[in-house]
Amino acid sequence: SIAEKAGSTSKRLTYSARSQISVNACGKALFELMERKKTNLSIAADVSTKSELIALADLLGPYICVLKTHIDIVVDFDDDLAAQLKALSEKHDFMIFEDRKFADIGNTSMLQYSQGVYKIVDWAHITNAHVVPGPGIIKGLKEAGIKKDRGLLLLAEMSSAGSLATGSYTQAAINMAKENKDFVFGFISQNKLIADDETFIYMSPGVNLTEGKDNLGQQYRTPDMVVAAGSDIIIVGRGVYKAADPIAAAKAYRDAGWNAYLKYSGQL
Amino acid sequence: SIAEKAGSTSKRLTYSARSQISVNACGKALFELMERKKTNLSIAADVSTKSELIALADLLGPYICVLKTHIDIVVDFDDDLAAQLKALSEKHDFMIFEDRKFADIGNTSMLQYSQGVYKIVDWAHITNAHVVPGPGIIKGLKEAGIKKDRGLLLLAEMSSAGSLATGSYTQAAINMAKENKDFVFGFISQNKLIADDETFIYMSPGVNLTEGKDNLGQQYRTPDMVVAAGSDIIIVGRGVYKAADPIAAAKAYRDAGWNAYLKYSGQL
Repeated sequence: SIAEKAGSTSKRLTYSARSQISVNACGKALFELMERKKTNLSIAADVSTKSELIALADLLGPYICVLKTHIDIVVDFDDDLAAQLKALSEKHDFMIFEDRKFADIGNTSMLQYSQGVYKIVDWAHITNAHVVPGPGIIKGLKEAGIKKDRGLLLLAEMSSAGSLATGSYTQAAINMAKENKDFVFGFISQNKLIADDETFIYMSPGVNLTEGKDNLGQQYRTPDMVVAAGSDIIIVGRGVYKAADPIAAAKAYRDAGWNAYLKYSGQL
Repeated sequence: SIAEKAGSTSKRLTYSARSQISVNACGKALFELMERKKTNLSIAADVSTKSELIALADLLGPYICVLKTHIDIVVDFDDDLAAQLKALSEKHDFMIFEDRKFADIGNTSMLQYSQGVYKIVDWAHITNAHVVPGPGIIKGLKEAGIKKDRGLLLLAEMSSAGSLATGSYTQAAINMAKENKDFVFGFISQNKLIADDETFIYMSPGVNLTEGKDNLGQQYRTPDMVVAAGSDIIIVGRGVYKAADPIAAAKAYRDAGWNAYLKYSGQL
């Protein structure tokens, strides 16, 4: 498989070392943030109100490197929510990743990214895109994002059952990333995908301290399994924000993710 | 190819005949609407303000079967816009298709469809989804949509250069549609895809009276080319709403699309 060829289980460089070779402003800053804050945990903040999202970002901000949002499930979004999220990202030193999964032609994706109600490019450091429309989507998003030092992740693999992001599809995502390293700094994937390039950051959803699946096809792996497969950032959703004690859960995932990073980068 | 095997250039049944064999409430209603109104034209209303979108829907409503929206590029969306679009769809007898291109896991897609600022399921008769996440996305959207008689289109092919929606990917979309005919009534595609099933409706973007491409990878075909390839509904964007005389342009596309339908269904 592509992941096996990439040698996902071989020893990795440290985030510090990788920040020094990164050519992408957003990726470089994220490597530095993770090392400085000693966390590779991203929280998927899938809540449906402004007050819940702000409370979650303020409560869990100290433990995370990236706050992952689905802004389009928040019923009472307004410009003030975006402003407050930006302020919290500075207060707690995390990046905001709007998990929009852009998937349209270049011109439309550019408008969805920069205009409309959300103006995502103005407040989200990171967003992501599917590669199914072809490379025009990267060109379109780049037109809006690169001048603001934003970074793009490509969806190379998905954690849901029956995902078609495999084989030649994943390879096409890899090729598009390599051709757009000024704007694309990493992947949403389940594995490390490129053996000879330590600059790309791999973020993996579907993480839970307990393996399993939900009834709509989502599949879960543990933090150690995810980092062992070569991923850099573990994305945890319901496992933290639906926990009885979200801070304790965030700390547990942060420690599990960080220890896995230390282990697989040879620092433990 | 899949399209060639589907016999896209063979003689088609009429919309009336197909409405009678359709098992999907939304698809059946759309066949009836097209025959009643004698139009297979859909306008892609890619404008960025509420006033422009309402004006466009009211101006061009009489000539179209489907108004295709990108609600997330409208800067001043509010609930009143959705209410006005619904009222205009009744006044002029067209369906609303929010071209959201859902592309997340089932649970998230369901929330994006039914909640958030837009509450798409409440006002859009039709929406669409990518199949890359696997069949869970259909199950998730169906949970929210089927009880309101909504219908889903699957993106089986795209009109942009370098699209990965080809071959086994397109085949996977076909299989998922066949397994979910209660909710999936058709495809976004460039061709007819299934030879032995006349119930699915094929809608094709990238239509212009002049062939060509834009600078972000979009490729254009003429109405006759699109219907000859087995498509049912032609989606026209900038070719109409950026025309000097949008009504004249809408009439020209409507007539070109309808004449192509009559020709390839053996009525001319």
